[in-house]
Amino acid sequence: MGRRHETVSFLSDYGTTDEFVGVVKSVIRSIAPHAAVIDLTHEIAPHDVRAGGLALARCIQYVAPGVVLAVVDPGVGTDRRAIAVEVAGGEGVLVGPDNGLLAPAVAMAGGADRAVALTDPEYHLPAPGATFAGRDVFAPAAAHLCNGVDLAELGEAVDPAGLLPGVLPLSRREGDAVVGEVLWVDRFGNCQLNVDPDEVDHLDEGVTLRWAGGRRLTRRAGAYAELKPGEVGLVVDSYGLLSVATDRGSAALELGLGPGDEVTLVPAGDGDGNGDAAGEPTGTVSPVQLRRSPGPS
Amino acid sequence: MGRRHETVSFLSDYGTTDEFVGVVKSVIRSIAPHAAVIDLTHEIAPHDVRAGGLALARCIQYVAPGVVLAVVDPGVGTDRRAIAVEVAGGEGVLVGPDNGLLAPAVAMAGGADRAVALTDPEYHLPAPGATFAGRDVFAPAAAHLCNGVDLAELGEAVDPAGLLPGVLPLSRREGDAVVGEVLWVDRFGNCQLNVDPDEVDHLDEGVTLRWAGGRRLTRRAGAYAELKPGEVGLVVDSYGLLSVATDRGSAALELGLGPGDEVTLVPAGDGDGNGDAAGEPTGTVSPVQLRRSPGPS
Amino acid sequence: MGRRHETVSFLSDYGTTDEFVGVVKSVIRSIAPHAAVIDLTHEIAPHDVRAGGLALARCIQYVAPGVVLAVVDPGVGTDRRAIAVEVAGGEGVLVGPDNGLLAPAVAMAGGADRAVALTDPEYHLPAPGATFAGRDVFAPAAAHLCNGVDLAELGEAVDPAGLLPGVLPLSRREGDAVVGEVLWVDRFGNCQLNVDPDEVDHLDEGVTLRWAGGRRLTRRAGAYAELKPGEVGLVVDSYGLLSVATDRGSAALELGLGPGDEVTLVPAGDGDGNGDAAGEPTGTVSPVQLRRSPGPS
Repeated sequence: MGRRHETVSFLSDYGTTDEFVGVVKSVIRSIAPHAAVIDLTHEIAPHDVRAGGLALARCIQYVAPGVVLAVVDPGVGTDRRAIAVEVAGGEGVLVGPDNGLLAPAVAMAGGADRAVALTDPEYHLPAPGATFAGRDVFAPAAAHLCNGVDLAELGEAVDPAGLLPGVLPLSRREGDAVVGEVLWVDRFGNCQLNVDPDEVDHLDEGVTLRWAGGRRLTRRAGAYAELKPGEVGLVVDSYGLLSVATDRGSAALELGLGPGDEVTLVPAGDGDGNGDAAGEPTGTVSPVQLRRSPGPS
Repeated sequence: MGRRHETVSFLSDYGTTDEFVGVVKSVIRSIAPHAAVIDLTHEIAPHDVRAGGLALARCIQYVAPGVVLAVVDPGVGTDRRAIAVEVAGGEGVLVGPDNGLLAPAVAMAGGADRAVALTDPEYHLPAPGATFAGRDVFAPAAAHLCNGVDLAELGEAVDPAGLLPGVLPLSRREGDAVVGEVLWVDRFGNCQLNVDPDEVDHLDEGVTLRWAGGRRLTRRAGAYAELKPGEVGLVVDSYGLLSVATDRGSAALELGLGPGDEVTLVPAGDGDGNGDAAGEPTGTVSPVQLRRSPGPS
Repeated sequence: MGRRHETVSFLSDYGTTDEFVGVVKSVIRSIAPHAAVIDLTHEIAPHDVRAGGLALARCIQYVAPGVVLAVVDPGVGTDRRAIAVEVAGGEGVLVGPDNGLLAPAVAMAGGADRAVALTDPEYHLPAPGATFAGRDVFAPAAAHLCNGVDLAELGEAVDPAGLLPGVLPLSRREGDAVVGEVLWVDRFGNCQLNVDPDEVDHLDEGVTLRWAGGRRLTRRAGAYAELKPGEVGLVVDSYGLLSVATDRGSAALELGLGPGDEVTLVPAGDGDGNGDAAGEPTGTVSPVQLRRSPGPS
């Protein structure tokens, strides 16, 4: 027997309009009644593996020890693997499809210790169709792990090095300019960039933001409420990355920015200078480094 | 005293924009702190008893033993009855309005053993108005049941045969054609039909789908991802029923299909033949048979 | 040590599109695994402190004993205080920003016994940025309170009399007319007014409703389903206040009413009489009295 777990942290693109989330939780409750399920979010855009992977990476340092269940799975029913990945010396196990969704979070958690493909049908529900692996494969696996079933019981061992990686754009320096990308637009319209505050230390407080739709003078600010009406700011967000923000308004709507959009930060007044990278290839990609902070005390 | 229950599985049309769901859970927590509440969904369209009944029927074989609380209740405050229905030898009790909402799930669970109307005010909350029975009548009943209060304590016995049935359209065969109806469109745009895969065994892999808005060649597929871009497929969904689907796109949007729409499946190339049922009456209605699979192991 | 708590009732404007709610719950789960979190709602419009305060006031008499966590916090990262307020002899503690959000609920719960500012960094999470106090300040405070940490440990004592009040418009009588305001439009389109049924006792069953967009004959009704198609009714809602409603339709859409809109109720046929208060100042504001009913039995 393996370690018992008390918590399943659950992320998906199921939405809450249908009963998918409720059914997955019902399956977990039936198999492992002692386990609490914490919903991270279920509003990942349908099939958006990248957005799901980023959201999971933002969550991972805060989730309670136990099982993480993540399902954004456009390849359901095909031969893409269903996997479970052990991290942090067994303190956590991530369960989901092997399509890159788990990879950023696994990296944030220090890398995979062990991994298996969920191939043993004994730990699946009998399924009338092949389209709801969350209910029939992933939820039972998560629940049995909570009950102390060892990872190795769930299926064939898999070399963690062979799991599908999640690749994300790196920011880059071009002269004085920093070229980055919008990783995430949150409910409030704040646009998280893949840019660490350190990367713009060479810029003064005044920074010109350029993107496909225009250019705008911005300034560094410590809080949204420091910004004046109509002003666009660069605020270090709660994950330690630069974000484009306005006060009580949506920077995304104001500027027309969305996930994946390229942005360039240049010194104010340097709008036509060496930072203009439009049309150039982005170069290498690699997992973005979300700044890590210590866990809850 | 009756059997104690540990879980309340909760479905409604309350949405999550308001605090209705939270207040119902608060009432349950206050009366029966040991009970866990599992949200099935709260996004049933307001007052859509048919959609709520279908969603509950899809869930019922997966819910944990205990109480099912379901509220889609356009007649709240009138003389429609509030009921509790015991099923499966007391392993489950369904609580909700007597308007057909519970009927399909009760049938799926093997039929009613006992039923009562929730008429004893001792088990209600004192209410400033008559519009929130979920909070004032149904939630307290669910919670008291969890505490081991016997069904018979909650109010007057009701003959289960007198409960309002939930009637749903049956598919029918007309020559080689199968005439069915869209039961449900899920978040991903898949359209569940009231058609069992067995019913189209006489058709080849190529099937023409006809509906009020047009006709389209489709083919049977085992998984969404087997479909090519632009192709419309017939996939056995996770409840064992045929669904109209596309890969990573919304079949509902692509074809303009919605719940209640009639569809006809005919052999490919037989588009103008004996399967054309447009304009004909649908005939008898009866509870649809959702294919049942064993519960979680 | 203080009293241990078992429940955190959680309201915010975080929405569920992002993982904010899930992260807050993860933090609570990590610090106080025994505590259950009940979501009241997270769909308060972004930064709408008034709407959040009203929703919390509607909930407060139903929430389970324990901690109430409420976050609608446009001033996050500024010097607005983070506070915890003890009520009901220690049976409840409300945690949130000192911006008026908690005030109506505190008043409903009988007023503040003690209050502190959450200034002790020992009970915060280390934060990469200053924008997510829900995660870094409020959630840890709520969780430590559940663990029995006394309120006084969390920071400097604050005089409850100095907390920011939540002011809400009072209805007023002008001759036979009652001038009120829409407090809340719920999912079903019902418009709750700040008008107690007693205030319209002098009016007959037929009442003319006037607002900026027009006038309409209404009548008092005991339940939505008593109203005829197209008829607009005045129904005592589940909080004991008058609401403008239609049967199975949205009164808000039908009449073009939204939160904050002024409405005037006058005797039917008295449409042009002494109740016409358009253009006049509203006069004094003060906490609205939501009618209180006994808690769950």
